[in-house]
Amino acid sequence: MTNPRSSAIQYAHENSTRFLNELKEFASIPSISTDETTKAAVLQAAQWVANHLRSLGMGNIQIFPTAGHPVVYGDWLGAGNKAPIALIYGHYDVQPVDPLNLWLSEPFTPDVRGDYIYARGITDMKGQIMVALDSIEAILKTGQLPINFKFLFEGEEEIGSPNLVTFLGAHKDLLRCDIAINPDTGTLSPDIPCITYALRGLAYMELRIFGPDHDLHSGIFGGAVLNPAQELCELIAGMHDAQGRVTLPGFYDQVRSIDPEEKEELARLPIGDQYYLNATGVPALYGEAGYTTIERLGTRPTLEVNGLLSGFTGEGSKTVLPAWAMAKISTRLVPDQQPSDVYQQMQSYLEAHAPKEIRWSLITMHGGPASISDRNSIYIKALSRALETVWHKPPVFKREGGSVPIVLDFQRILGVETVNTGFSMPDDNMHSPNEKLHLPTWYRGIDTFIHFYFNLAQ
Amino acid sequence: MTNPRSSAIQYAHENSTRFLNELKEFASIPSISTDETTKAAVLQAAQWVANHLRSLGMGNIQIFPTAGHPVVYGDWLGAGNKAPIALIYGHYDVQPVDPLNLWLSEPFTPDVRGDYIYARGITDMKGQIMVALDSIEAILKTGQLPINFKFLFEGEEEIGSPNLVTFLGAHKDLLRCDIAINPDTGTLSPDIPCITYALRGLAYMELRIFGPDHDLHSGIFGGAVLNPAQELCELIAGMHDAQGRVTLPGFYDQVRSIDPEEKEELARLPIGDQYYLNATGVPALYGEAGYTTIERLGTRPTLEVNGLLSGFTGEGSKTVLPAWAMAKISTRLVPDQQPSDVYQQMQSYLEAHAPKEIRWSLITMHGGPASISDRNSIYIKALSRALETVWHKPPVFKREGGSVPIVLDFQRILGVETVNTGFSMPDDNMHSPNEKLHLPTWYRGIDTFIHFYFNLAQ
Repeated sequence: MTNPRSSAIQYAHENSTRFLNELKEFASIPSISTDETTKAAVLQAAQWVANHLRSLGMGNIQIFPTAGHPVVYGDWLGAGNKAPIALIYGHYDVQPVDPLNLWLSEPFTPDVRGDYIYARGITDMKGQIMVALDSIEAILKTGQLPINFKFLFEGEEEIGSPNLVTFLGAHKDLLRCDIAINPDTGTLSPDIPCITYALRGLAYMELRIFGPDHDLHSGIFGGAVLNPAQELCELIAGMHDAQGRVTLPGFYDQVRSIDPEEKEELARLPIGDQYYLNATGVPALYGEAGYTTIERLGTRPTLEVNGLLSGFTGEGSKTVLPAWAMAKISTRLVPDQQPSDVYQQMQSYLEAHAPKEIRWSLITMHGGPASISDRNSIYIKALSRALETVWHKPPVFKREGGSVPIVLDFQRILGVETVNTGFSMPDDNMHSPNEKLHLPTWYRGIDTFIHFYFNLAQ
Repeated sequence: MTNPRSSAIQYAHENSTRFLNELKEFASIPSISTDETTKAAVLQAAQWVANHLRSLGMGNIQIFPTAGHPVVYGDWLGAGNKAPIALIYGHYDVQPVDPLNLWLSEPFTPDVRGDYIYARGITDMKGQIMVALDSIEAILKTGQLPINFKFLFEGEEEIGSPNLVTFLGAHKDLLRCDIAINPDTGTLSPDIPCITYALRGLAYMELRIFGPDHDLHSGIFGGAVLNPAQELCELIAGMHDAQGRVTLPGFYDQVRSIDPEEKEELARLPIGDQYYLNATGVPALYGEAGYTTIERLGTRPTLEVNGLLSGFTGEGSKTVLPAWAMAKISTRLVPDQQPSDVYQQMQSYLEAHAPKEIRWSLITMHGGPASISDRNSIYIKALSRALETVWHKPPVFKREGGSVPIVLDFQRILGVETVNTGFSMPDDNMHSPNEKLHLPTWYRGIDTFIHFYFNLAQ
């Protein structure tokens, strides 16, 4: 009797051309969710995924309508009660294609050039969905699936998943599972396997400063009252010290520090300052003193001004002394900071520093805590061993600076952890022209998922 | 032989009802210059003024077309070469009337209620124009005008006089005079005569801070780069010290300090902190330490943020790390500051304080120096004596915080000083509903101008 893993991998290799053709077919559907005019194409992509699940023998397939684009569900529970249930998450919608003139091939006519295939959505994330499904096909066609599966594919990720939380809340039982798998976070380079084990949280606020009860003439009143735009700037300036540290009282109290081992692992990441200089175009990088850029992005909280507005902002000049000034301010959080604590810290900061000559209000907006996975959990270890088997080297562990709302929603609503993975790369032009997918890594991804599923059963 | 002043004043008093009726007629013309649909009414007001000058026997009357609303010119040079020429400036256009529902009477149906007459433009400045013309009529009808007159009435003051500089430049010879009289600056209260002898100047700038070459995701890049909105705030915060003083290097070097006598005079002004608290609605006044509010407004330079713009400023939240941030910043200048020096000081400040992690640019916009009249000039003394004769007390001397561009333009293009006066009051609702004119003060204004003209001849 042959090794079931080897059989599955052999099947995958033998069917690689057909797998690629199916990916091309999927990527030919212009399922741009941001555009009303492509609504039919988004539905067509949902139907394509549903049909593909059906062709694999998955059951209970449903296309749930939502207030926006539909959610595709399916499952396969034949591995029995003892085996875990993995919930595969994905999104079948894609970004818009503008500016179209910068594309070297038609965005919805997938084009293989060298090691890459080019198309809108090919890496974000139709290619990643097919990694998860092709590996299931390979196992099924050569033996038995070792674990149970549920599938949740949405069509609104690129517009912020406005209807997903409602859907999760309404279908908690249907979606009950042991682990969620999100292949939408990607890797770093073809050479180095990677697991994203931490995501930062968010606390978003709007600060409004009120001065005079109407816009004043800056000549007639300049010198009599405190300018709210100036005061806003002073308050914002005071939110960082000279070392780039956030000064909100208690801001760092709950920040979990990283141990030397994790620090060492982060230093191994094949992404350094030059990468960030290239990606941003800034003359020099900047951040909290005492930490590398990678450490700052993944393991340290930050406070950013997301927007400023006051007074006259058009062309030319107007000598107004504005009645009010506004800033959008958000903090990225790391374990174990809580958004509610940060809101309170900002409130305390303002109470301590806002002068009596102005009035202010702080509006708290959406937020969520950071999420971090135990790098020693059975699920992370299952993926780690799978990556090491295929790449012949252990994966690096990466913290992601952004938040992935779906991970927090799964935790909050379904009570389940998520393994974040995927085989897209930072330079895949995800939201830009000439989006591409590295085919050798994609095929390795299918092999990896075959091992991953088997490892999850152990 | 009776005193020519007494005769003129007696004539004015005897004709007060007709004077008021003529003012009502003038104020019934809806000459709103901001509105294309009232263009005919603006022209009608120009024609009304021209006809009135003609009816007084003034000569050389012309309605000059401009790229916008016309300029009305007239003169009377019968006092001979030895007598000075006074150029009377005025504007026959008025502010819009919105919000109409807050008016207690029709804005263009002048309505006398108690000591006041209500109408749009009644105090700003049709009433003031009629002070200058009714006093001329009173002298002419009872004797000889003691000085020569030229008249310059524009129709675009409420939209920033876009065509006046061109007109002045093209008609320098026609407008040649010894002193300009601008009755558009007003007084403080019915009880206290007042002369505005100083106006602040202006240096207006736009500061742009550039960070990354495109908007970034604040999660993925927050902690790697310096946020240009934060840096803009830090630079602006640094432009004042804890005493409310402007920190631009050399900013105060050319500031002329006031002597104890002037300080004492300013302290006599019947306008104090409570007035500014009421007028602005701020919880507390604010400004450079060591100076009273009146001193700060009139005699000290200020730096104001007129506008702020960066990143996302709509409803809700967007986690953008903005590519750039912008501020409109202007300084009000006092003698002997020069706008060009201030631009250089800002440049030096930015060179010293802007960090290497961002790029910046400073755009200099319109500006002009402060203007101050010698309180002992023959022209100011002529007005001062006239006010004292009518009010039986010496006028207070007021510095105005704003700039009156026409005064600088007269100085620069015609090479002539301006006497700033007028009988409007701060609470006359100049740009608001229920604009009003205090009739007893208006009649005293006519008496004052009769004395003023005679005093100018001495």
